[in-house]
Amino acid sequence: MKMKVITFNAEGKVQVVEMDKPRVQKPTDAVVRITKTTICGTDLHILKGDVPETQPGKVLGHEGIGIVEEVGSAVSNFKVGDKVIVSCITSCNKCFYCKRGLPAHCQTGGWILGHLIDGTQAEYVHIPHADGSLHHVPKSIADDALVMLSDIFPTSFEIGVQNSHIKPGDTVCIIGAGPIGLSALLTTQFYSPSKIIMVDLSESRLQSAMKFGATHAIKSGDLEEIKNKILEITDGKGVNVAMECVGYPATFDIAQNVVAIGGHIANVGVHGKPVSFDLQKLWIKNITLSTGLVNATTTQMLLDVFESGKIDATKMVTHHFKFSEIETAYDVFKNAGANKALKVILENDWSK
Amino acid sequence: MKMKVITFNAEGKVQVVEMDKPRVQKPTDAVVRITKTTICGTDLHILKGDVPETQPGKVLGHEGIGIVEEVGSAVSNFKVGDKVIVSCITSCNKCFYCKRGLPAHCQTGGWILGHLIDGTQAEYVHIPHADGSLHHVPKSIADDALVMLSDIFPTSFEIGVQNSHIKPGDTVCIIGAGPIGLSALLTTQFYSPSKIIMVDLSESRLQSAMKFGATHAIKSGDLEEIKNKILEITDGKGVNVAMECVGYPATFDIAQNVVAIGGHIANVGVHGKPVSFDLQKLWIKNITLSTGLVNATTTQMLLDVFESGKIDATKMVTHHFKFSEIETAYDVFKNAGANKALKVILENDWSK
Amino acid sequence: MKMKVITFNAEGKVQVVEMDKPRVQKPTDAVVRITKTTICGTDLHILKGDVPETQPGKVLGHEGIGIVEEVGSAVSNFKVGDKVIVSCITSCNKCFYCKRGLPAHCQTGGWILGHLIDGTQAEYVHIPHADGSLHHVPKSIADDALVMLSDIFPTSFEIGVQNSHIKPGDTVCIIGAGPIGLSALLTTQFYSPSKIIMVDLSESRLQSAMKFGATHAIKSGDLEEIKNKILEITDGKGVNVAMECVGYPATFDIAQNVVAIGGHIANVGVHGKPVSFDLQKLWIKNITLSTGLVNATTTQMLLDVFESGKIDATKMVTHHFKFSEIETAYDVFKNAGANKALKVILENDWSK
Amino acid sequence: MKMKVITFNAEGKVQVVEMDKPRVQKPTDAVVRITKTTICGTDLHILKGDVPETQPGKVLGHEGIGIVEEVGSAVSNFKVGDKVIVSCITSCNKCFYCKRGLPAHCQTGGWILGHLIDGTQAEYVHIPHADGSLHHVPKSIADDALVMLSDIFPTSFEIGVQNSHIKPGDTVCIIGAGPIGLSALLTTQFYSPSKIIMVDLSESRLQSAMKFGATHAIKSGDLEEIKNKILEITDGKGVNVAMECVGYPATFDIAQNVVAIGGHIANVGVHGKPVSFDLQKLWIKNITLSTGLVNATTTQMLLDVFESGKIDATKMVTHHFKFSEIETAYDVFKNAGANKALKVILENDWSK
Repeated sequence: MKMKVITFNAEGKVQVVEMDKPRVQKPTDAVVRITKTTICGTDLHILKGDVPETQPGKVLGHEGIGIVEEVGSAVSNFKVGDKVIVSCITSCNKCFYCKRGLPAHCQTGGWILGHLIDGTQAEYVHIPHADGSLHHVPKSIADDALVMLSDIFPTSFEIGVQNSHIKPGDTVCIIGAGPIGLSALLTTQFYSPSKIIMVDLSESRLQSAMKFGATHAIKSGDLEEIKNKILEITDGKGVNVAMECVGYPATFDIAQNVVAIGGHIANVGVHGKPVSFDLQKLWIKNITLSTGLVNATTTQMLLDVFESGKIDATKMVTHHFKFSEIETAYDVFKNAGANKALKVILENDWSK
Repeated sequence: MKMKVITFNAEGKVQVVEMDKPRVQKPTDAVVRITKTTICGTDLHILKGDVPETQPGKVLGHEGIGIVEEVGSAVSNFKVGDKVIVSCITSCNKCFYCKRGLPAHCQTGGWILGHLIDGTQAEYVHIPHADGSLHHVPKSIADDALVMLSDIFPTSFEIGVQNSHIKPGDTVCIIGAGPIGLSALLTTQFYSPSKIIMVDLSESRLQSAMKFGATHAIKSGDLEEIKNKILEITDGKGVNVAMECVGYPATFDIAQNVVAIGGHIANVGVHGKPVSFDLQKLWIKNITLSTGLVNATTTQMLLDVFESGKIDATKMVTHHFKFSEIETAYDVFKNAGANKALKVILENDWSK
Repeated sequence: MKMKVITFNAEGKVQVVEMDKPRVQKPTDAVVRITKTTICGTDLHILKGDVPETQPGKVLGHEGIGIVEEVGSAVSNFKVGDKVIVSCITSCNKCFYCKRGLPAHCQTGGWILGHLIDGTQAEYVHIPHADGSLHHVPKSIADDALVMLSDIFPTSFEIGVQNSHIKPGDTVCIIGAGPIGLSALLTTQFYSPSKIIMVDLSESRLQSAMKFGATHAIKSGDLEEIKNKILEITDGKGVNVAMECVGYPATFDIAQNVVAIGGHIANVGVHGKPVSFDLQKLWIKNITLSTGLVNATTTQMLLDVFESGKIDATKMVTHHFKFSEIETAYDVFKNAGANKALKVILENDWSK
Repeated sequence: MKMKVITFNAEGKVQVVEMDKPRVQKPTDAVVRITKTTICGTDLHILKGDVPETQPGKVLGHEGIGIVEEVGSAVSNFKVGDKVIVSCITSCNKCFYCKRGLPAHCQTGGWILGHLIDGTQAEYVHIPHADGSLHHVPKSIADDALVMLSDIFPTSFEIGVQNSHIKPGDTVCIIGAGPIGLSALLTTQFYSPSKIIMVDLSESRLQSAMKFGATHAIKSGDLEEIKNKILEITDGKGVNVAMECVGYPATFDIAQNVVAIGGHIANVGVHGKPVSFDLQKLWIKNITLSTGLVNATTTQMLLDVFESGKIDATKMVTHHFKFSEIETAYDVFKNAGANKALKVILENDWSK
């Protein structure tokens, strides 16, 4: 049996092709029919060739929701017909890293969907280690919000917010108001900081940030200007938490210049080269710093909070497309700034 | 009334001079007659002019034990005649930073002795905020061990060991087997790691390390060699904790190359310039990093452990001198390598 | 110079008498002119003779705000004219317990105001250890809200909420919807639990609770009924956190019957006799339990959150009186149920 | 194919019988040939009928080491021929409780061996959820020590020591010097407390305790005497940590009377009835308390520490028997006091 999938060619162009519909191979596998998925910034990197281990022809995508189509004999948490979130992280639950709470580094999983194995921008997706990689969904949460739980919310919450140990009353600076920065902004509020300062170059993203709960917005790329404004807002002390949500030396530099004595720098951005780290100034400041790839171990916690109505994740979604409009969808997302795009939803209109 | 003190001149030469014996000025002050003190690597930096805020003429030293000579009317923890440790950190207990557990950054204290105010290499020393800056001593601990509690043990324990959250069974690498690295080695053992690997260039320091409880010693400055040996020792995983106890880009580079997925880098060394931080490799590894100046909030905890006999801090002391032998003492300590010196004790032979 | 104060006689009747206006005696003291104070349930216990160490004639009250009138020579955080919160806990900052973060048990402080020394229901109050026992106030917070920071908010937040380590998405049950239970309800929301269930016998208090953010209210004193409703709300699992905010064996019994496997019981209530603790059922359930008197170490954190507008503490205040209406004020508060009273504010109309 | 097993009859008498050798039934199962096992106090409770869900005819035992004989198709951590520890806790790794770090309450596992399913006192044992319930063993650790890792060491370490958050320099009291109390004594030392006080009625067990690292032993069952001695040892403060390792109201009463302000009570004992909990005294003392069944999530951590040579668990073993001497073995263990027995090893002499 055949299915349609979204992949890319050697020129980095998105293509719709046909391939065999996946089947369960190991007792721990499942197959999921995708109903909705989305595009991640990482997918664009793959198209550009920045992720060399992902070769043309691989099905794109590591996010999405769907319906379980088939399960292996050792799968016990899910059955055919269950509506599920597909996590961007595949977890065996039992290897060295999974046992230590680090499924990001699962020895037979981690981030493999749309990367090392075929992904979710397809009618069907093959899911290894299904019990550790899928999540049941409550009826009360909108589909668009659920799609945000595959990657963007766990990533910003775990790597940005939880790693920062934000306490009530803290001051927080988030550098970068893209999808990751904005979802960090929403989940930061779970811990009741007193001030949340967003830094970005885009007026429209900062406007979104102010609507999403930021207390201050700084539109600037100038280190001294940013630093001075933050010192002014924080009584000269700097912020308790600085989250780097971009991934460049210049944005890391903002973080290390605005963090307070005793504060924390959470690196969320994906970096391509080393940064200059000012240990000559920071060795004495009793700071901590964290990095990481999402473990997706907080998906259930986030579902519980979403279900309480505390947060409306659908406001991260700015555009909706069908699988059959895939070229337009990628074009819009590639030009996110001009299109004021945050996250775009792709709906599977090829199979029901 | 006059006293003799140890200071330095514009040429960076140690000198003995006379000055007025200090008196209590504020109700929270004390004056302590020093019985024993020691020389810190920082004192050598001051002589070389690396600490420009410390001008020639200032009394050196921020460590030592002694007898309380005079107390202000608001001092309640100490009385004349008490034997005390003088902490390297002066703490008011009540400013913004002290209340947050960061007396290293006390707004009227912190590291000021032998830095911004006259220090402990003197017959008598003036101690502001006496209740927060002195510690009672139990009779059962040797004087030489007590001197080690002014700075070196709290520094290595708080900034190296506690910041690393070492767990039983962990693997630890300590880069630098000088006094700080060796006291980190001793206090790391409070938490029962399974492997402690010391890295240094000095054969004699590594021999001390093996005697002090290290399980492995690596004599090398070559990054690849060190990295390969550590991967071999740790089943290819790297260490759970890498402590940088030197303060150079090259030694930081070792730390960031040997830390395991999910591990911690504790920076203890004092750095003079930025380091190149490999976020392009580390962003994905879920590591944490910490820095800091000692708060000296664990002095009592360390006294409790010392008193139980678990640790013998006197083995950090390799040489003994009198105040009247001060030039020799500094010469020996300046050439620590050739003299196999760790810590040198200075005894006050000028006043009883 | 004389002042008027509120005290009580051997019959437990509140009285207005005159006594000498207090003066600074030690360098660490301050005198504060009270502007507003309130009545605590503990004051009623004192009138009834339940607190035998508080003898008739002692000035009542351990809460309030005012203006600094006089400071000792060693007070450095405050000066004459400063507007301050008087904490219910007096802290020297430097004794054995204060150094361990337990000023509730300060060896020369703790809860002494209106208990062992004259209290705040007076024109002026003498404050020992002023630097550790007063707090500056930001202009943007209403006076009535500030009075709530002397005792009730730190108590419910530290002993109820912080001791429970509430995580986003958690389920919480608060037993008792009086002032402590309701302020626990407000501060519990700092951590974004998904469900907060209030249990009480009073319809009006439960109505307040639902207005203050509770998700469920149970009006019952019947253990089986309460337990069944809570199991129903929590998918048969019980609550992650059960806060006992009353102080009777029967209310503790509710807590120990509704806590989930792996959950926490926070005892906030003041108990007069032992409780029967079901270790035959709980030994296997991996629960934790905590008790405590407030340390008032979170006052600044609470001020920061109040200042951000996240919480409006004035809704805890149901009645306002002048010092000259003191008998009426106590009568209203003694019959809190009939009067739908939560907290009553007393304003000093005797001195300006 | 048949095998011999150890079970019990309606009179509570241990019996050797034959039954079918177990086979893998689900893809996640394994079968292990037992080489060594031991007897737990719980086995004696089962013989007496105190554990009604364990009916006569069930194979006894939930501890042991052996060789993997057969594995299901979904087992990936183990292969035929591997030498393994059988954990007393069976864990699926993926249910509600396992995901929360509470495999003690695994929805299809937990403590089931020798309880709800046939146990380890047999030639072969059937292991459900093999990947979560077995552990690889390093060659350098003695077999007798490995057997101690099935239950007793994880139990005392997780429920006694880890739950207590022991810090270097702490004072600890362990009530009960039986196998659990003594292994708690050994693992408590991982965190370098300054004083460890053992309380028991048996002179010989207290002698073992002093050999195993206790600093003080109290031979008494009199509450006032015990309390006074502990106050004397701890400068009148009580202990930071009180571990209850027996399971009676009287021993719990010791714990709650000797815990210091700010201290912790870790309940490790299995209780059969409620205890009187002195909240009228403890509400104000800022204590915490914990309970629990072992999760066995620290087995690898304990293996790492054992491998480093820090602890010699074989000293817990006082007697050795063959399966063919099973009646004698149970007799000796039933009269542990008279026989000065701690743990007895049973060796499988029926199959090779």
